[in-house]
Amino acid sequence: MLNVLFSAEDARWPEYEGPLKQAFDKAGLDVALSRDHAPETVDYIVFAPNGPVSDFSPYTRCKALLSLWAGIESVADNQTLTQPLLRMVDHSLTQGMVEWVVGHALRHHLGMDAHINGQDGVWCNKAYPPIAAHRPVTILGLGALGAACGRALAALGFPVSGWSRTAKEITGLRCYYGAQGLQSALSGAEIVVLLLPDTPATENTLNAQTLSLLAKGAFVINPGRGPLIDDDALLSALDSGQVGHATLDVFRIEPLPPTHPFWSHPGVTVTPHIASFTRPESASEVIAAQILRGENGEPFLHVVNRDAGY
Amino acid sequence: MLNVLFSAEDARWPEYEGPLKQAFDKAGLDVALSRDHAPETVDYIVFAPNGPVSDFSPYTRCKALLSLWAGIESVADNQTLTQPLLRMVDHSLTQGMVEWVVGHALRHHLGMDAHINGQDGVWCNKAYPPIAAHRPVTILGLGALGAACGRALAALGFPVSGWSRTAKEITGLRCYYGAQGLQSALSGAEIVVLLLPDTPATENTLNAQTLSLLAKGAFVINPGRGPLIDDDALLSALDSGQVGHATLDVFRIEPLPPTHPFWSHPGVTVTPHIASFTRPESASEVIAAQILRGENGEPFLHVVNRDAGY
Repeated sequence: MLNVLFSAEDARWPEYEGPLKQAFDKAGLDVALSRDHAPETVDYIVFAPNGPVSDFSPYTRCKALLSLWAGIESVADNQTLTQPLLRMVDHSLTQGMVEWVVGHALRHHLGMDAHINGQDGVWCNKAYPPIAAHRPVTILGLGALGAACGRALAALGFPVSGWSRTAKEITGLRCYYGAQGLQSALSGAEIVVLLLPDTPATENTLNAQTLSLLAKGAFVINPGRGPLIDDDALLSALDSGQVGHATLDVFRIEPLPPTHPFWSHPGVTVTPHIASFTRPESASEVIAAQILRGENGEPFLHVVNRDAGY
Repeated sequence: MLNVLFSAEDARWPEYEGPLKQAFDKAGLDVALSRDHAPETVDYIVFAPNGPVSDFSPYTRCKALLSLWAGIESVADNQTLTQPLLRMVDHSLTQGMVEWVVGHALRHHLGMDAHINGQDGVWCNKAYPPIAAHRPVTILGLGALGAACGRALAALGFPVSGWSRTAKEITGLRCYYGAQGLQSALSGAEIVVLLLPDTPATENTLNAQTLSLLAKGAFVINPGRGPLIDDDALLSALDSGQVGHATLDVFRIEPLPPTHPFWSHPGVTVTPHIASFTRPESASEVIAAQILRGENGEPFLHVVNRDAGY
């Protein structure tokens, strides 16, 4: 019998209790799932931010902390955590992100907003978009999400460049890395998608200098993390026309305060952190599979490198 | 020396003269391209609607009529035309259509309009779309355009059904055909894309009966031809909620008259016949290649079946 502690905000429990129990059963795991195990009896912790546990030191028997979320910055630098921290890599989360990123890239590419907002009886078909082959896209961040989005955009005909901290190779993408590579990756890009992790090294990756490298009127799409962008530099670039439109799903403070200028700027579309999200059914299966690996003595997947922060 | 007549509306001539001459040169064809050859001297006619020629009988030497457009209903039933009529199948036209169809399918799938129009400072993230795997799409028409759109949507994870008049097989799509197949193809569809040719047999393919087969709140996307839809039936289905939204690019009368109820209906997005279009450079290469085939005694490609009307 394994004791699995569920530590997340209260609203998550009714969503996850059933799917997790079902996934454990299906995996043949004998689990007592609870929000209230004594710390020294816990074998695994299923974790999301805003739950009750912040001091992990009493969890002496715990073999791993299983994050429900892809982004783990809220726990990665917790000094009391000595157990392995496992990032959620969930097919449906990746899939949802691909749909959102491809959808908004095509929305900007095709200039849809002008039509959605222009139902005024005037038939005006003079401005045509180029085909995707003439619209360079750059993805910053080539983890599971960035790589999947890059491949999907390349399959639709966009020339896609990708950038990551360390060198990667992804079929169909032109891959850059490191500080110098960032300059090359952004130069002339007409659509930029931000899917980097939130670490001290990625803060303000899009700033006045890097925004100036983009093609005039470029589109910025941020489903990654708020601190990746210098907000003031983005607003200036929107005002000057250097950036044509920004669609932002994540922010330094969430919910984005009603008075933040992003809400009222005509060049910004705010979406409320919906680009993608963990679905209880598929996430529960991922968690059961990780625990099964642990119990079988196999290495865990997607272990966070605490030094790199992701 | 071949005499090629250019017969289209005047505005097309400056767009096409250069690209056509360049494509003929590149193909090694010795061509006199003009808008004004004597009929009995013409070897080929490059054709678009609204040009000067409507009686083809004096063109006794003409080996083929090369349409600049994919849709050929305006000339297919011209009784004076005895020469082969070649439909335009152009990679960039297909590519543009895929981008438009995938973009608007994702727009409806993701519920983008609510965010584009909802920049009011209220952070509301309660309504999530399903992933694409749970959003059945049906494509009516499996020619070059329909097949390419179906494949692109299937690659993004949508379950795609296709329907055509005669049986076809397309990898990754569930294909139906004939009158009974139409009922099956539409049953439960949440997104319907119309890419059928405009023929007497396809008029009002979407009507009160077929619209009632769709899932409640389905999305209708019509980049094909206006007469494929019974306008009044669609408006009724929108008013009842049977159809959630319609994005329409083509109409029985174009430009769509400013007083047409589609413009003012909140459930309709009108776009001005921009879903896709022939690009002069790529179309000119297709035309040169067809003429080269003719001069080399090879069979023409994409010859219209005048009985079927496409």
